[in-house]
Amino acid sequence: MNRYAIGLDYGTNSCRSLLVNIDTGEELGSVVFPYPSGHQGILTDASDPNLARQNPQDYLDGAVTIITGAIAQAKETHPNFNSDEIIGLGVDTTGSTIIPVNVEGTPLSLTPEFADNLNAHVWLWKDHTAFEAAADITTMAEKMRPEYLAKCGGTYSSEWWWSKIWQCKKVDEAVFDAAYSWVEHCDWLPAVFTGSDKPENTMRSVCAAGHKAMFSDNWGGLPDKEFLDALDPALGELRGRLYDKAYDSKAKAGDLSAEWAGKLGLKEGITVAVGAFDAHMGAVGSGVKAGSLVKILGTSTCDITVLPESVDLEDVPGVCGVVNGSVLPNHYGIEAGQSAVGDIFLWFVNNLVPDSYGTTNDEKFIEMGKRLDGLKPGETGLMGLDWNNGNRTILTDVRLTGVILGQTLHTEAHEIYRTLIEATAFGALTIINRMEESGIKIDEVVNTGGLAVKNEALMQMYSDILQRPLKVAASDQTCALGAAIFGAACGGTVTIAEVQANCCQMREKTYSPIAENSVIYEELYALYKTLHDAFGTSEWQGGLGHVMKDLIRIRQEQRKG
Amino acid sequence: MNRYAIGLDYGTNSCRSLLVNIDTGEELGSVVFPYPSGHQGILTDASDPNLARQNPQDYLDGAVTIITGAIAQAKETHPNFNSDEIIGLGVDTTGSTIIPVNVEGTPLSLTPEFADNLNAHVWLWKDHTAFEAAADITTMAEKMRPEYLAKCGGTYSSEWWWSKIWQCKKVDEAVFDAAYSWVEHCDWLPAVFTGSDKPENTMRSVCAAGHKAMFSDNWGGLPDKEFLDALDPALGELRGRLYDKAYDSKAKAGDLSAEWAGKLGLKEGITVAVGAFDAHMGAVGSGVKAGSLVKILGTSTCDITVLPESVDLEDVPGVCGVVNGSVLPNHYGIEAGQSAVGDIFLWFVNNLVPDSYGTTNDEKFIEMGKRLDGLKPGETGLMGLDWNNGNRTILTDVRLTGVILGQTLHTEAHEIYRTLIEATAFGALTIINRMEESGIKIDEVVNTGGLAVKNEALMQMYSDILQRPLKVAASDQTCALGAAIFGAACGGTVTIAEVQANCCQMREKTYSPIAENSVIYEELYALYKTLHDAFGTSEWQGGLGHVMKDLIRIRQEQRKG
Repeated sequence: MNRYAIGLDYGTNSCRSLLVNIDTGEELGSVVFPYPSGHQGILTDASDPNLARQNPQDYLDGAVTIITGAIAQAKETHPNFNSDEIIGLGVDTTGSTIIPVNVEGTPLSLTPEFADNLNAHVWLWKDHTAFEAAADITTMAEKMRPEYLAKCGGTYSSEWWWSKIWQCKKVDEAVFDAAYSWVEHCDWLPAVFTGSDKPENTMRSVCAAGHKAMFSDNWGGLPDKEFLDALDPALGELRGRLYDKAYDSKAKAGDLSAEWAGKLGLKEGITVAVGAFDAHMGAVGSGVKAGSLVKILGTSTCDITVLPESVDLEDVPGVCGVVNGSVLPNHYGIEAGQSAVGDIFLWFVNNLVPDSYGTTNDEKFIEMGKRLDGLKPGETGLMGLDWNNGNRTILTDVRLTGVILGQTLHTEAHEIYRTLIEATAFGALTIINRMEESGIKIDEVVNTGGLAVKNEALMQMYSDILQRPLKVAASDQTCALGAAIFGAACGGTVTIAEVQANCCQMREKTYSPIAENSVIYEELYALYKTLHDAFGTSEWQGGLGHVMKDLIRIRQEQRKG
Repeated sequence: MNRYAIGLDYGTNSCRSLLVNIDTGEELGSVVFPYPSGHQGILTDASDPNLARQNPQDYLDGAVTIITGAIAQAKETHPNFNSDEIIGLGVDTTGSTIIPVNVEGTPLSLTPEFADNLNAHVWLWKDHTAFEAAADITTMAEKMRPEYLAKCGGTYSSEWWWSKIWQCKKVDEAVFDAAYSWVEHCDWLPAVFTGSDKPENTMRSVCAAGHKAMFSDNWGGLPDKEFLDALDPALGELRGRLYDKAYDSKAKAGDLSAEWAGKLGLKEGITVAVGAFDAHMGAVGSGVKAGSLVKILGTSTCDITVLPESVDLEDVPGVCGVVNGSVLPNHYGIEAGQSAVGDIFLWFVNNLVPDSYGTTNDEKFIEMGKRLDGLKPGETGLMGLDWNNGNRTILTDVRLTGVILGQTLHTEAHEIYRTLIEATAFGALTIINRMEESGIKIDEVVNTGGLAVKNEALMQMYSDILQRPLKVAASDQTCALGAAIFGAACGGTVTIAEVQANCCQMREKTYSPIAENSVIYEELYALYKTLHDAFGTSEWQGGLGHVMKDLIRIRQEQRKG
């Protein structure tokens, strides 16, 4: 008898499935479903570039397509495959991606009254409309509850739970009043599949709660009513209709209902794990452990590591979240990340790369990659700041923007592309340095996501800059794999560690730092850090008259060398 | 009887002629000759991006083509035109563009021995190989002869006479030793045409000498031997084979020789004026006067104004040159400029504008112009520094580079184009402010050059930012017109002022500042100036944490407003 599990990974523009044999790690099926609504699945508003919403119906339609599709694939390639041997289902999603629901747990946007109201739809993680609310929450917490901030890096983000709910109250009282409760996308889907979507029945993920809603057992769950009242009495009042317990994904959200078993082609009653955020499950699917930082290199990045709960961990200033059990049971889950990485390269190729490099984005990336192959570190004379979408870690400030510096009349597009890659790597190094300053040692980096697999030039630069070996997880779908692992383990017949051991492999190719490159990058990083602090903090004072001269000197030395 | 004059304008990539009736201002002929050598007329060296040389043969071939061509045009459109009624010839060139010559005055590169040696060719103004020599000259002058620096803005440039000659000595003793003397391009051509090209016979332009070779009657001409010896005894030794008098262009370089009259199709013996730099003659061709700044808006800019010698003028820190008689007789000529303006736009369109804007550069510029039409000042959220080719005024530092700041994931190419235009305008304002701080009042700006004529959006932004009326000179060839004016006047039968009155007209369209734009630009300029001082000076100390936030605030206010 074989044992399979299925993991669902809900990303920003599409969702995908992975059907895996939990004893052999063999991957039998995987299907992608691009969300049909809006522009690439995102509902936008021309008058406000900060707004990003989604349609929850896309999530349901996607589940059917990607699960039935994966099963069909498995049957085609494995004639003896029996879908009744799928023992569990797990789900990960983006976050904080939150849904206003009515008393039945139905998303307001799926009710006729609010079908056309963007504020009643899903507030996607990258919706930044709530930046003022976030700043006010930070200010209030600094005054009343500094302990809340310590767990989320010192600044509460506009991407998170309370900012968005409060913003909804500010801009659309009708939606706010009609919302009996709010639910994270990662909690809603398991609840729907198990028939526990009435808000009081829904199992809430500690990963979402702890990282985004300031939930901690240290202060009895969600922020206390006094604090919420101080923000807005309506939030204090809402608190009672939310939740007071949160679970890690070792826990079961419930058993698959007959209704959804029928729609999905699965056996009724199989276990469905409590959901979690994509990055956390991706970290598990990449074999995260103490000393190993998992980097999910996508449009943005998530940087995740763990530390046994037995270790005495201080707070990590500027690091988005430190939450017990959010990644692995009995471990602190430590989450950081960069607001845009692949998105910056995509922005660049979409907007600033001429057709002399190729006619499609793929051709342009390939040609730019070729042309930067011959360049040594520092040879561009350029330096950038990777803040086109703000800075999530360690400055936690969405109102920062990008910089390119050092251009001459000879600067070409592929040199700027290289600079953007380097800038994101310097941003990554800044995160690792901050973790190590707080006692979280990082010995190696395990990478997953499209860029880790496809972009060898980028990976080598990252290794040179991070000065650590870079591995690449074997699975193309580490997030979905992590979800499948939890789906299998939440039934209690197998442990997370056992399934990880069977399924989490590394690719053969490991990237090692090239010493002569690292030396130059150390010098360049000092300049990056100066610009980072100069533009990114209010404390920095100094002079920058040396920056352009240093870049030119390094360029000249490298060209000669 | 009609009276005509012909002016020749030698630019960076081509030369052009203008044949004008000096009593009516009618322009009868104009021909362009692109230099055939190298890449767009410039000899380069792949291993050193600072190197830019030219072939003097291109200048001679060009003279024949553009003069005979202009005469042919005049004959075609004016059947009664008689080329014997051309009474004078004037020449302007780029500078400091210098030529090593042998004892006969023949450029070394036109002798077989040195035909293939780049160091024996013309050292074009924008050759920056001598940046170390320039820095050493500045240091030595600060120590020994601070008065030399006061006249050239406090810093001696790598683009200028002594830097280049010394650099030649450092890198190629064979060429240096073979050079009996050195001559500016603007002095060499009138000398050739009048048979006075033996170095001791060549009339030297006070414009070139004063602005670029530290020549002043205040200290007896060129820098003294003691100073030059301190730099390098070979320079002190060379001094004796250079010159001790320099002339303004009211003076005659000589009479046209029979040989060249034949080649050029002109009457033997007509007057040839002492040459000058393009910008200076362009200023005269644009009707320069006290209170009026002439801006030659091309690949780079020259900003020229005059002040009567009767006024007590202090030195102007950071302004390239203040030289008596260099523009108009009996006036201080005050010259500043930006190292790249049109060149920055051209760099951008050549390297970073995708084909969605059009397939040719012209199409791309037009489409970007259209798309930025609807944008208000500050709406891009971007800020730039216009230093892709260094900063000539007021920082006089070629080792500065460009900056673009404020990018998001939504930033498009035309927004960056707008930012680059604004950055060059802020650079222009910085120059005007420095002039006014030194008591040189600027009431209006007269523009000439391709951008002034073709780019209305740019002109309006400049007017909004400079907060002054902007006029545009009527002639398309103000530099060549200025040269023609001197060619006519140097014979003494007519004055400069008389020919200017007949020939220097303005176009109907004048640009006036739009008050609501100027208010926003004042705020943006404060940010520009902060970045300018932060990156461009060694003295500045401060914080920049407000810069991105301010840009976002202004953007939001403008989008709402």
